[in-house]
Amino acid sequence: MIKAGIIGATGYAGGELVRILMGHKEVEIKWYGSRSYIDKKYYEVYQNMFQIVDDVCLDDNIEALAEQVDVIFTATPQGFLASLLNEDILSKVKIVDLSADYRIKDVATYEAWYKIQHKSPQFIEEAVYGLCEVNREDVKKARLVANPGCYTTCSILTIYPLAKEGLIDMSSIIIDAKSGTSGAGRGAKVDNLYCEVNENIKAYGVASHRHTPEIEEQLGYASGENVVLNFTPHLVPMNRGILATAYANLKPSVTEDMVRAAYDEYYKEEKFVRVLDKGLCPQTKWVEGSNYVDVNFVIDNRTNRVIMMGAIDNLVKGAAGQAVQNMNLMFGLPETEGLNLVPMFP
Amino acid sequence: MIKAGIIGATGYAGGELVRILMGHKEVEIKWYGSRSYIDKKYYEVYQNMFQIVDDVCLDDNIEALAEQVDVIFTATPQGFLASLLNEDILSKVKIVDLSADYRIKDVATYEAWYKIQHKSPQFIEEAVYGLCEVNREDVKKARLVANPGCYTTCSILTIYPLAKEGLIDMSSIIIDAKSGTSGAGRGAKVDNLYCEVNENIKAYGVASHRHTPEIEEQLGYASGENVVLNFTPHLVPMNRGILATAYANLKPSVTEDMVRAAYDEYYKEEKFVRVLDKGLCPQTKWVEGSNYVDVNFVIDNRTNRVIMMGAIDNLVKGAAGQAVQNMNLMFGLPETEGLNLVPMFP
Amino acid sequence: MIKAGIIGATGYAGGELVRILMGHKEVEIKWYGSRSYIDKKYYEVYQNMFQIVDDVCLDDNIEALAEQVDVIFTATPQGFLASLLNEDILSKVKIVDLSADYRIKDVATYEAWYKIQHKSPQFIEEAVYGLCEVNREDVKKARLVANPGCYTTCSILTIYPLAKEGLIDMSSIIIDAKSGTSGAGRGAKVDNLYCEVNENIKAYGVASHRHTPEIEEQLGYASGENVVLNFTPHLVPMNRGILATAYANLKPSVTEDMVRAAYDEYYKEEKFVRVLDKGLCPQTKWVEGSNYVDVNFVIDNRTNRVIMMGAIDNLVKGAAGQAVQNMNLMFGLPETEGLNLVPMFP
Amino acid sequence: MIKAGIIGATGYAGGELVRILMGHKEVEIKWYGSRSYIDKKYYEVYQNMFQIVDDVCLDDNIEALAEQVDVIFTATPQGFLASLLNEDILSKVKIVDLSADYRIKDVATYEAWYKIQHKSPQFIEEAVYGLCEVNREDVKKARLVANPGCYTTCSILTIYPLAKEGLIDMSSIIIDAKSGTSGAGRGAKVDNLYCEVNENIKAYGVASHRHTPEIEEQLGYASGENVVLNFTPHLVPMNRGILATAYANLKPSVTEDMVRAAYDEYYKEEKFVRVLDKGLCPQTKWVEGSNYVDVNFVIDNRTNRVIMMGAIDNLVKGAAGQAVQNMNLMFGLPETEGLNLVPMFP
Repeated sequence: MIKAGIIGATGYAGGELVRILMGHKEVEIKWYGSRSYIDKKYYEVYQNMFQIVDDVCLDDNIEALAEQVDVIFTATPQGFLASLLNEDILSKVKIVDLSADYRIKDVATYEAWYKIQHKSPQFIEEAVYGLCEVNREDVKKARLVANPGCYTTCSILTIYPLAKEGLIDMSSIIIDAKSGTSGAGRGAKVDNLYCEVNENIKAYGVASHRHTPEIEEQLGYASGENVVLNFTPHLVPMNRGILATAYANLKPSVTEDMVRAAYDEYYKEEKFVRVLDKGLCPQTKWVEGSNYVDVNFVIDNRTNRVIMMGAIDNLVKGAAGQAVQNMNLMFGLPETEGLNLVPMFP
Repeated sequence: MIKAGIIGATGYAGGELVRILMGHKEVEIKWYGSRSYIDKKYYEVYQNMFQIVDDVCLDDNIEALAEQVDVIFTATPQGFLASLLNEDILSKVKIVDLSADYRIKDVATYEAWYKIQHKSPQFIEEAVYGLCEVNREDVKKARLVANPGCYTTCSILTIYPLAKEGLIDMSSIIIDAKSGTSGAGRGAKVDNLYCEVNENIKAYGVASHRHTPEIEEQLGYASGENVVLNFTPHLVPMNRGILATAYANLKPSVTEDMVRAAYDEYYKEEKFVRVLDKGLCPQTKWVEGSNYVDVNFVIDNRTNRVIMMGAIDNLVKGAAGQAVQNMNLMFGLPETEGLNLVPMFP
Repeated sequence: MIKAGIIGATGYAGGELVRILMGHKEVEIKWYGSRSYIDKKYYEVYQNMFQIVDDVCLDDNIEALAEQVDVIFTATPQGFLASLLNEDILSKVKIVDLSADYRIKDVATYEAWYKIQHKSPQFIEEAVYGLCEVNREDVKKARLVANPGCYTTCSILTIYPLAKEGLIDMSSIIIDAKSGTSGAGRGAKVDNLYCEVNENIKAYGVASHRHTPEIEEQLGYASGENVVLNFTPHLVPMNRGILATAYANLKPSVTEDMVRAAYDEYYKEEKFVRVLDKGLCPQTKWVEGSNYVDVNFVIDNRTNRVIMMGAIDNLVKGAAGQAVQNMNLMFGLPETEGLNLVPMFP
Repeated sequence: MIKAGIIGATGYAGGELVRILMGHKEVEIKWYGSRSYIDKKYYEVYQNMFQIVDDVCLDDNIEALAEQVDVIFTATPQGFLASLLNEDILSKVKIVDLSADYRIKDVATYEAWYKIQHKSPQFIEEAVYGLCEVNREDVKKARLVANPGCYTTCSILTIYPLAKEGLIDMSSIIIDAKSGTSGAGRGAKVDNLYCEVNENIKAYGVASHRHTPEIEEQLGYASGENVVLNFTPHLVPMNRGILATAYANLKPSVTEDMVRAAYDEYYKEEKFVRVLDKGLCPQTKWVEGSNYVDVNFVIDNRTNRVIMMGAIDNLVKGAAGQAVQNMNLMFGLPETEGLNLVPMFP
């Protein structure tokens, strides 16, 4: 059995990691780290885990943890892991970091968007960007995986085949994304109160959301171009789910068949990416609770644009599920172990 | 592998049965019966099942089905199974009936509340009321199991230990229940439209809901008394979940310790019933997607009443999960097979 | 024009008071008191008020305020007004207190349930309990009105005619109430986050909610008996609305006609109480945004109980609307002025 | 008093019209037309109107109606009014048509997008497109006003100042819109059931939604160019509200100040359009129940695009409120009469 520790086990992403790992045959959680709830029973924080998890919450001593487990998941605020990571730790455990600390290769970009000094840039080069569908082979060999953001996972996988195949004008990309409220975390803020979110929709972080450079960097690798794009997130009155609606100009003489062929080629072997039948638009409810990404597209001949759409569960494929998928690859396990989660409807 | 057929596979309960059986190691579904969608791919009706279920919907020919499978689940309207069942069918397959046809032992009571003539009363005696926690041994030997209703499962398990132990005045029971909207089914009715249900709560079927006699009959068996009670269902703006809040007068000199001891005794070995720690009230979200029933109670010394509370997921323990639990017992499988579903939060 | 000041103008009840008074022809708000937002524009706290209210938030200096206005609304935490009120203030302004400070005539009961020492019990006797339908004439003469609680308004008006007419056994009353989340206020608490409330229902404050003694006291006056009852509140995933489902044993030989006659008699002249047609259950959505109370009942002949139901908008009839109704009476204005609010559907 | 008739009074837009007109001092509704509910009390269809409206529903005989009222509102399916309108009717009454029949000046475009033959194209020229903020003077003189669509009202007013002032590249416009579910109407369809919409978001009508040509035509008039754009609607789990997020390339050397000046200039006198303070994104909840349009923008210097945002209540400014605003202009009443609706929050 692989021994796992979670730092930040009582946030929503941490909680989802626990839910998924409970169904994973090869992993047992040995450490429920939560600075806020030390010595409290984990199930007292998440009562759904009553009689399932009997452990108490521990602090977030990563050095001690590294001695005891094979893999650490850090579901922590930006800067936390970067401030603590060292070679000694990495020599003892593999790490899947759900924060943004090692996602962006260019330190200056990271520091500019996150308004934080990066404390351990020496590990950025080594860290593998854990979008399994794109970097599968590198993930398998990694000690340190930077688990992608929720919006970024959805956005990149929605656009990737067309970027990679050069079918769209990379300077024309606009991503309009919509997220459920669990993406905002479990912090007690007025803006996230039920009465403020319910019966309401708004954009936020317009032209300034920190997932933007991450999407740009990855689509840059895919297309071989420097990519600058618009990304606008919206808050939707639902618990889970991200829908990305992305727009781009088709390059000259690109046909619908070429676009569909690109999606089919890149995703036909991918267990977790479902290219929907023609005419169907992804719905977040169809992937809820699962690790799936549903994608599809429509071409508007009037404007010569392609509208690309993708849906994920932000806590699964957008966080904990993808983290487990990365772990599976890092430990040579079947990629789908623990992740055969059938979407729940309704 | 046990071969299963589902008649009524495209209702919400039928869909949940498919979701759960996808994770069951010993069962494969051979027949997706749906009169409304014959020849349509099942995933076209429930797009969450895309690339998971590739079968087409078949009609509801129970005779043909009985030749091909080991167990039939009927998630059908009241009267359907009763009008078709015969000894020949029962000699070939086991049946778990999610409708009310064989739940109530007294035909006259059934016919009075359901306003329907019972077409095969000869099987009522044989049918086992499939509340596993109460009738486990009988279910193991049954050919025909009447799967309990959603409100009834929640209500009975909430009250059962106190009824059985004679701690409450059985003539004083009032059950005020609240259900998510999936309990109303997938039929296209104005009353169940999003805009009619959202931001709204109402009682319905007051003093006339058809789950009333089922609860009364079962609590009657438990207490050895003839039970008449009040049951009031309410429609709540959420997809899943039932919360039952039940009130009863304590019998003289019944103490809190006695009440807690009763719950602990009846449920301490029950995997799917969780008696919460003192002071905690069940929440439907804590059991969502799982087969759990969370129960607890508060004693009001001022009025000498006990307030009993129970929460389930109406589609799981209230329908499909319990049906699988019954099937497991009927086929000698571990009772929890396929049902180790961790509640999803949030 | 009557000059009004609001202390606690930035809570949800305070905000609703502003919304309603904007449509009141005889009142202008001169003081938006909010300790948390002093000097901030009111519309920056409630952006719905942009270009409608241009005032800044002021502190909660009640002495200064009493010099400048004719009426003060206190939408403040328990104990606030009691700690500041004096004869000098009351000699200058009328006060409608939306807190519980002067609702309960028995100081010991107040102190026991609220766990607070009452700092100005000398005004309790004078204060009029502002349930207009019951105490209209007293309200007209009052300097100090204790505006009823949200649950209490709904519960009392639902039961009142039968209590007053002696048609029910007062020792048998059970009130199972369900409230939208705005009743929990605008404080930033994890329990009230969107993801915790959405898709969830729970009871809370079981056998201990502080509205219990208030309901008991008022129904005691109505019936002329000492009343002890069960009151169980539930949190429902919606913004607004309270539904009370109340149960009681009918006294011998009470008929349905007698019950209906009681409701009709007490409410036939009441503009804001609507007794629904037979067979209809109140829905919170039907009163949303309005000052209405919708009530109705069903008699269960099997148990000889009456199920009484009532629905209100907790922020209007349950708080701000009723406060304005009281103010209208206190100043000799038409009782409905500013309150001809048509419920919004959907 | 102006006498009004409504054809289609029992749809959501018709219901909202009734709600608004109840508060209008100069209008009385004389005819509640509803083919589906003839002879039924209106309040039986919308119980919120109990004791407010006592009329019964009548049929939709527009000839008879024209004899009895001064203005007719048609909240009817596409093609209804076009198939019945004639000069005789128009000589007797003014008409505000909430359907699309007379919105689009080019018949071929109408017929292509609506897949319907236009039965009375002779009135298209005369009909005034009732976007009051744009066509105020023409509306005042009109006999027949084509009330704009919900998405179109929001989209056009969000973009209008920049289109009119020539600040954006009209060929680059992308509108990503999100709507509450009341926009889908009150028809009983599976897709609009609570359980299908709740906890879900999806795009629909991608590159084919019928509001597209209406937006294009109006922005074409504003800019003096032939406009072709992308419009993508999404269904959001909420009752009311539309948010439009629109993207366009800024023309060379256009500055933020120029953009803000354009909004300020066009809307500074507009009662119902609120240009938010810099940095604030419109939220649908801030306009709920009111006739406001909240707009704002962000410039992304990295991509040289402007992100324009607008929020309305789809049933008010997007339908019934705007219809009343048009009626006020047509009858020489103050434009805001009946429309001083303060947004309801929460």
